Amino acid sequence: MPGIFDVTGLVAAFLTTMAFLPQVIQTWRSRSTADLNLGMLLALSTGVALWFVYGLGTGQVPVILANGATLMLVMVLLTLKLRDRFARAA
Amino acid sequence: MPGIFDVTGLVAAFLTTMAFLPQVIQTWRSRSTADLNLGMLLALSTGVALWFVYGLGTGQVPVILANGATLMLVMVLLTLKLRDRFARAA
Repeated sequence: MPGIFDVTGLVAAFLTTMAFLPQVIQTWRSRSTADLNLGMLLALSTGVALWFVYGLGTGQVPVILANGATLMLVMVLLTLKLRDRFARAA
Repeated sequence: MPGIFDVTGLVAAFLTTMAFLPQVIQTWRSRSTADLNLGMLLALSTGVALWFVYGLGTGQVPVILANGATLMLVMVLLTLKLRDRFARAA
């Protein structure tokens, strides 16, 4: 029987992973990224990628799955932000 | 001597925590939050708060510190987003 804190960790992992889904949907539709900070997206994608490597290295499947999903979502945001920035620069 | 994955985890924790600082600075200055998704901010603050509780419950100081700092930063973004939304509705 999982303890209360196991459940807390699972719900926390689910929320902090899925949190980026509504942001990706909004940004995908609007293509407007002005209010999204490039520095945040770069640091977040690098940090999440390192958490993914950490999960692989320590064999923690929940860390691998949560950060793998988050990484894909954040990379979509980073791509949309860079495209928006280059389109404005052109 | 900390292992390579201990260092990886520490750098990942630092990056995913500090990532929100440039976003808070930009949003604080611009007061423009239209491109920030309210659903993301609500899910992220709830999830990070649960990670904070998880850290307290399991006695993991790095989890407590990283998520405590992230929670404060995300709460600033959430407050700015809600103020922006109510100001527009008024």
